[in-house]
Amino acid sequence: MKNILILIFSISLSFTYAQENLNFRPQKEIVSPQINDNGTVTFRMLAPLAKKVEVQGDFLSTKGAGNMTMGADSVWTFTSAVLPSELYSYSFIVDGLKVRDPNNVYLIRDVSSVVNVFLIGKGKADYYKVNDVPHGTVSKRWYESPGLKMTRRLTVYTPPGYEQTKTDYPVLYLLHGVGGDEEAWMQLGRASQILDNLIAEKKAVPMIVVMTNGHTSNSAAPGESSKGFYKPVMMTPDVFDGAMEQNFKDVISFTEKNYRTKKDKSGRAIAGLSMGGFHSLWISANYPNTFDYVGLFSPAVLPPANASSSIYQDLDGKLKQQKENAYKLYWIAIGKTDFLYKNVADYRKKLDTMGFKYLYKESLGGHTWSNWRDYLTEFAPMLFKK
Amino acid sequence: MKNILILIFSISLSFTYAQENLNFRPQKEIVSPQINDNGTVTFRMLAPLAKKVEVQGDFLSTKGAGNMTMGADSVWTFTSAVLPSELYSYSFIVDGLKVRDPNNVYLIRDVSSVVNVFLIGKGKADYYKVNDVPHGTVSKRWYESPGLKMTRRLTVYTPPGYEQTKTDYPVLYLLHGVGGDEEAWMQLGRASQILDNLIAEKKAVPMIVVMTNGHTSNSAAPGESSKGFYKPVMMTPDVFDGAMEQNFKDVISFTEKNYRTKKDKSGRAIAGLSMGGFHSLWISANYPNTFDYVGLFSPAVLPPANASSSIYQDLDGKLKQQKENAYKLYWIAIGKTDFLYKNVADYRKKLDTMGFKYLYKESLGGHTWSNWRDYLTEFAPMLFKK
Repeated sequence: MKNILILIFSISLSFTYAQENLNFRPQKEIVSPQINDNGTVTFRMLAPLAKKVEVQGDFLSTKGAGNMTMGADSVWTFTSAVLPSELYSYSFIVDGLKVRDPNNVYLIRDVSSVVNVFLIGKGKADYYKVNDVPHGTVSKRWYESPGLKMTRRLTVYTPPGYEQTKTDYPVLYLLHGVGGDEEAWMQLGRASQILDNLIAEKKAVPMIVVMTNGHTSNSAAPGESSKGFYKPVMMTPDVFDGAMEQNFKDVISFTEKNYRTKKDKSGRAIAGLSMGGFHSLWISANYPNTFDYVGLFSPAVLPPANASSSIYQDLDGKLKQQKENAYKLYWIAIGKTDFLYKNVADYRKKLDTMGFKYLYKESLGGHTWSNWRDYLTEFAPMLFKK
Repeated sequence: MKNILILIFSISLSFTYAQENLNFRPQKEIVSPQINDNGTVTFRMLAPLAKKVEVQGDFLSTKGAGNMTMGADSVWTFTSAVLPSELYSYSFIVDGLKVRDPNNVYLIRDVSSVVNVFLIGKGKADYYKVNDVPHGTVSKRWYESPGLKMTRRLTVYTPPGYEQTKTDYPVLYLLHGVGGDEEAWMQLGRASQILDNLIAEKKAVPMIVVMTNGHTSNSAAPGESSKGFYKPVMMTPDVFDGAMEQNFKDVISFTEKNYRTKKDKSGRAIAGLSMGGFHSLWISANYPNTFDYVGLFSPAVLPPANASSSIYQDLDGKLKQQKENAYKLYWIAIGKTDFLYKNVADYRKKLDTMGFKYLYKESLGGHTWSNWRDYLTEFAPMLFKK
């Protein structure tokens, strides 16, 4: 009797949703993507009227798209090759129109593009999973930037145990690229999962991670500020203009006032990808006694847009000072096919010439989140150790 | 020169994305949806090969879908009637296939369905916007539930000023419906925006809001637990089985240990929608001296699945005790066309018969998030006032 009533509740609810919210309609029960035991992935899409359905994504070893095959049930399918462990993204193309997989609710936004994702474990992407380990807290907070005269949003990861202890924790400031914002490292970068898992394995020490918004003309990610729901763009007028570097002290000051942090150089790291690597380079050079750990992930070593800013004056002198002050780690990583490879090679030559020590990691691939997740997984364990 | 280099950076980056991440491709510059000054909305979609494109959503006053018209540029368009202020959802239908708007990155998941959203302001939905007002902090935290023998995830909103003061704050426990989880009130319910805005206008007092996961067989929302990326379902085995009510003390205990809260009845409210209304009814009845404020939003007043649980014994006796202990507000709200209308009417009769005082709100419409956002906007200002 009780179960019948709940069944009626369930049916009524489905019916009600169908009536009142036309967007809510139970789909025919299709599983897609299906991660197979042998490491392949099967994609499925119901499209009875389509003439051609393809699947496209970074899991394909070749460029282009894979042709899906229609079965008698009007469900198109495609099974991939055996895939190495990774967080992959994909879309379907139905008669030339790119669409998302209606059976996969897991989506990540990259600038103005939203794509489906899936994860292949049993390898490096096990670090990107939510595993049965203690989890840190992820907070979206707003801080005052007196320098920018703005209230701005950031993401703070505090490690498992933070709330139960009285300890002061070291802080990694983790910066995004030109297409990103304070959500990017959490969504595309799986930063909280990587940190939870590295800390659980005792590969990394418990640390706070502060993820800022590097576009100083925005107070928050698209949709999260009073600008409302606008179409995100990659380039904003603030790129490489010095304002991020100039006002980064507001972020540090906020963090050290609001969290139990180690308040010296040995307890601070800064790292970023692409534009965030540029920011990390200049912030660490301009505050040459602030960070013991610097990570440049595929850094955009490019001339600044606003070269007259004092921030961008006398790099050689600033690096010399940073070298004299000493630091524990200056880590540069880039993929062999990254379009910034030569810029980074030139920068390394400069550092070599002046005897500025760094560790260098050259990976396969290019300017991708796949590499940046790798770099974070490799960089975080090197931080804050005696 | 500098600008040229940045242009080259930008082009290289787009090219690189196109090469390395096939899912990332700049779209032809289309704005959709466009909120027009006169309160209408124009939808646009590029679909050169399509024979028929429709738009479907809760903004249409009639059932069915609106036919879009193709222009010379292969862009299909549809302009709505003048729309009242609301957060709306919609999808496109291209030759019978439901797809999302590729130019709108704002998406909300409801169970296994992900739909595009847009917001019409100048009315009640101004409360759902991120406005230039002080913002609270939103945290995803994990708590121990000794009763359930699980570590579980919840969402905590702390109001603006929480971190700067030493004050103890009252707490609203805000529960979701059968299709939801600890994300639902934030995503579909716009709870942090509603609270920020009500507090800024001094309509509501600053309060902490704790949003739990009411499915005790899950530790977290889909994709946020070690169950990985699975297809969400509406019904789970735990529905109406008493475990949520039985173990809610773990949530209160965690909250009061970890946040600066008022630790008496006058500082606690509990409210929920649909299944969360059922939970709020039974939790407040079983802990009859715990909450001074109870909100039942379209409550699922239904027989429990596990009627033998002590939680579900002797409702009359428990309500009598709750009445004797006194409380400040017992608020029931439901839409005239809700499929639970009669159940709620019967429950009100019971309360009337026993002289159990409550405030009753009857709105238009049915079992919808539109109503639940309204109810929260009306309920929160009634809480924790002298």
